Amino acid sequence: MRRSGKLFVVSGPSGAGKSTLSKKVVDFFDDLRFSISYTTRRPRQGEVDGVDYRFVDDERFEEMVERGEFIEHACVHGKKYGTAEKDIKEILANGMDVLLDIDVQGAEQLAEKIGSGVYIFVLPPSMEECRKRLMKRGDIGPEDIEKRLRTAFEEIKKAADYDYIIINDDLDGAFERLKAIIIAERSRKESLIEDVERILRSAK
Amino acid sequence: MRRSGKLFVVSGPSGAGKSTLSKKVVDFFDDLRFSISYTTRRPRQGEVDGVDYRFVDDERFEEMVERGEFIEHACVHGKKYGTAEKDIKEILANGMDVLLDIDVQGAEQLAEKIGSGVYIFVLPPSMEECRKRLMKRGDIGPEDIEKRLRTAFEEIKKAADYDYIIINDDLDGAFERLKAIIIAERSRKESLIEDVERILRSAK
Repeated sequence: MRRSGKLFVVSGPSGAGKSTLSKKVVDFFDDLRFSISYTTRRPRQGEVDGVDYRFVDDERFEEMVERGEFIEHACVHGKKYGTAEKDIKEILANGMDVLLDIDVQGAEQLAEKIGSGVYIFVLPPSMEECRKRLMKRGDIGPEDIEKRLRTAFEEIKKAADYDYIIINDDLDGAFERLKAIIIAERSRKESLIEDVERILRSAK
Repeated sequence: MRRSGKLFVVSGPSGAGKSTLSKKVVDFFDDLRFSISYTTRRPRQGEVDGVDYRFVDDERFEEMVERGEFIEHACVHGKKYGTAEKDIKEILANGMDVLLDIDVQGAEQLAEKIGSGVYIFVLPPSMEECRKRLMKRGDIGPEDIEKRLRTAFEEIKKAADYDYIIINDDLDGAFERLKAIIIAERSRKESLIEDVERILRSAK
C-alpha cells in the first residue's frame, strides 16, 4: 500500500511551538522524515548539529545559495535558514514522506516554487502566550522580543494561505491534530487510487 | 472554539463495513451526530428503530418523497432509503457535525444537490473479502450475493469522486483513519479562521 511521497510543511511564527510539534510527529511516524535545515545561527542549548539543524557559517551558506542548492532559503531575525533540494529528493526517493519545519518566508517561497505539498500553520493561542514562550526561551533580549512579536503578528495574518491551522493551546492536543492531518492526507483519494485499481483487478 | 457544523458523508458498497465504522466514530466524538436514515427494509437482527434506522412502510416513505422531505433518497437492492433534510438541519443548528452513512447512489445525489461536505469512500480490501462479509451477514441468498458483488464492483469504480478513501482491511486501522479525517477536517483553515482573527485581536 505504498503511496507516493508527500511533502508536509509546518510553519508559523516563532514562539508557536512548531519545532517541538514537528519533532514529536517525525518521531511518531516511521515513514516520515525531517529534511534538516541549514542555518547560520548558533545552536541553542541541547541542539545537535545534523539532528536539529546543519549549522554552517555564512560563507558556506552563500556558496550553497549561489549553486542553487536551496529549494527555499530565508533570513529570519538576522540569521539565514535554508532547505537543500537534494535532502528532500533523497527522502522521497526512499519512499518516505518529508516534513519541513520552516519559517513563514520559507514556506511562502516553497509554495510559489513547487506548489504541491500540505501546508500547516501553527500558532499560539494568544499574542500574550506567544510573548511568554519567547521569554521562556532565554536567548532573546527584551527589544528583540517586541520585534519578534510584531513579526509574529504580521505572519499570523497569513494563516489563511495554509491548508490547515493548528492553534497550539496545549501540546498534546496540538500533537493529536498534527498526527491526524498526516493520517488523513495519506487517506486522500489521490494517495489511494492505485490501491483501488488493484482491488478492482482482484475481481478478475 | 466552535466551528460551523460540517457534514461528513460515509459511503461505499455493501459489505465494506461502513455502518460499523460510522457507528464507532459517532460514539467517539461528542459533537458528531448521525442523521438517522429512513428505510422501507426490515430491521436486521439487533437493529433498533430510531437508532439504526427509522423503519417505515412504503406508503409513508412515498409520502415523504412527495413532500420533498428527503435531501437524498435511493432504492438499493429493492429497498428504499432516505435522509430527511430536517434531521440534518436540526443537528447543525445544535452546533454539531453530522455524519451520514448512506449508499453510493444517495451520496451522488447529495453531492449534486448540496456540493459541500466531506465525502469518504469505504471499501473492502478485495472483492473476495467483500463476498465473505456479505455471506457472513446471513440475510442474503446466494444469487443476491452475486448481484451485490457486481453492484459493489461498479460502485468501487466511483471511489475517485470522493475526497477520502478508506480501505477497510482491519477495523481498528480503518477506524483510526476515519477519526483522523474528522479531526483533520476540523483543522482546515476554513474552520479556524475566526479563531485566528480572535488571536490577532488579542494583541495589545
